[in-house]
Amino acid sequence: MARHEQISTTELTKRLLRAEPRALARTLTAIERRSPGVDALLASLHEHTGNAHVVGITGPAGSGKSTLVAALTRELRARNRTVGILAVDPSSHRSGGAILGDRIRMSESSTDPGVYIRSLATRDAVGGLSRAVLDGAALLDAAGKDVVIVETVGAGQAEVDVINVADTVVVVSIPGAGDHVQAMKGGLLEIADVHVVNKSDRPGAQQTAAEIRNAISLSVGDREGGEWDVPVQQTIASTGSGVSDIVHQLDEHLVWMLDHGTRAERARHNATTRIRWAAEELVLHHLRAGVDSFDAAVAEVAGRRTDPVRAARDLLRTLSASLAEP
Amino acid sequence: MARHEQISTTELTKRLLRAEPRALARTLTAIERRSPGVDALLASLHEHTGNAHVVGITGPAGSGKSTLVAALTRELRARNRTVGILAVDPSSHRSGGAILGDRIRMSESSTDPGVYIRSLATRDAVGGLSRAVLDGAALLDAAGKDVVIVETVGAGQAEVDVINVADTVVVVSIPGAGDHVQAMKGGLLEIADVHVVNKSDRPGAQQTAAEIRNAISLSVGDREGGEWDVPVQQTIASTGSGVSDIVHQLDEHLVWMLDHGTRAERARHNATTRIRWAAEELVLHHLRAGVDSFDAAVAEVAGRRTDPVRAARDLLRTLSASLAEP
Repeated sequence: MARHEQISTTELTKRLLRAEPRALARTLTAIERRSPGVDALLASLHEHTGNAHVVGITGPAGSGKSTLVAALTRELRARNRTVGILAVDPSSHRSGGAILGDRIRMSESSTDPGVYIRSLATRDAVGGLSRAVLDGAALLDAAGKDVVIVETVGAGQAEVDVINVADTVVVVSIPGAGDHVQAMKGGLLEIADVHVVNKSDRPGAQQTAAEIRNAISLSVGDREGGEWDVPVQQTIASTGSGVSDIVHQLDEHLVWMLDHGTRAERARHNATTRIRWAAEELVLHHLRAGVDSFDAAVAEVAGRRTDPVRAARDLLRTLSASLAEP
Repeated sequence: MARHEQISTTELTKRLLRAEPRALARTLTAIERRSPGVDALLASLHEHTGNAHVVGITGPAGSGKSTLVAALTRELRARNRTVGILAVDPSSHRSGGAILGDRIRMSESSTDPGVYIRSLATRDAVGGLSRAVLDGAALLDAAGKDVVIVETVGAGQAEVDVINVADTVVVVSIPGAGDHVQAMKGGLLEIADVHVVNKSDRPGAQQTAAEIRNAISLSVGDREGGEWDVPVQQTIASTGSGVSDIVHQLDEHLVWMLDHGTRAERARHNATTRIRWAAEELVLHHLRAGVDSFDAAVAEVAGRRTDPVRAARDLLRTLSASLAEP
């Protein structure tokens, strides 16, 4: 059994490194579900990661992110770059219709073997989605995609997760959304490496771009390093207007990061997160393996006969022995 | 130093058990920041928890949750019950104004020692907010509040967090929000123990209530146990109309849970979550304590010379020795 799984993991790894769509789909489902064995698979892929330019795209509902991603993908394909897209949807039941529509529009790319697109959702516990995003991006990276786009639909935590995974963060706004620009302060404004004002054929595009530039210049003192000159790009994603400029800005940002050590810094941040999650996974596995003692501990804590920290300490004391090489 | 901290923790614990507002405020800030020592403090409070009825209140922005919480608090105080309120705001920079306004309206309660109200926000990593909510609710529980209300402002993860902490989940809707009722399916609809249609002086209140009842009856097959008859209550929080009925329904739900073992089940779920978090905290503490080896591991993983799982396993192998009783 163990031998059989070993073989199929090796074979699956090969297929993933060749970016076979069915292997990718299967593995992304395993990532969403945190299926057993997915950690071993990701571990074996790890040495093949670090080559893709991971681009996070976020912004409010209705800002045309998906159309922008489609247009950006066309521009990247025109430059012969392969593209992997993860559409992250923390609340798929809410906007299922809209996403489906956008995805159908994207389907022009679906016959192109240089493009792989996949929605990512998880109803799992806290942190489940962000971990799936990080793992999914690493998978598409290992599969040799030149650019991995992580598009977040929704707000809040999903936007924050983009920072954890992306080399370059693109924040999308639309004209006349003065409230949005206000709301970005203290949040999206600081994390954006590239600002896009999409739907710039609508009235007020210039003003919104000016407001964003103004907000950036006011907050520039807070920017780490403070050297990357954040562009504010107007686009009309539906016609492709301005989209090639974004490709140019993404390239410039990647080069800037390489020059300034920022990319290595993000790689270390990424590694830190992954080691922490792996450690937590090992600990959880250990706790689950000792299910009887865990259940007993839960009963003790629920009955207020011991506190959670003491219970955890007692459960962990036997961990080291279980960490022998597999 | 250790002795001094020991003394002040004991003293702080005493003050918390007496529900002294300054001690509560200080500890909630420590919970938000995950300050060192907060785990030891919560461990010492654990045996005093489990008495409060923890009520989660969630719903979309503009549904009048804060006004409802204020009205509910008045009703509870009229019954001589003490109330602790945690207003959870995962994105305080967005709706700061609205919250402030609601809070000012709430300030009529601020001179009443039987009411403690506090906003809870954290810019911490994934899971930070939900952990702060669980810890904050446990604190107010230990401080002897009869009812602890956790009000979530915002959407997504914060709503889900309410389930983790609450005995009873109240979902607030408003008339004419047909889209909202649709959107609840597969999410809030299933977690609601009590539905409230607030602002029921607006047109369409009856219809919205009927839509919710219909949606509940369609999904009733999915309800665990399927026995609690979820009420749909119309209210006008600004006048207090219908609010005393909610108090009645909360009481009924608590009794129902006690009768059906559901409350003990939630206590076990809560204990499981807390043990897991405590275990993760112990592991993180261990990893941080060995900062040199952790930094070396990060460099190895970032450089693709080892994978995160192997690095985590190596780092954890020395954990047991560090878990000797403090």
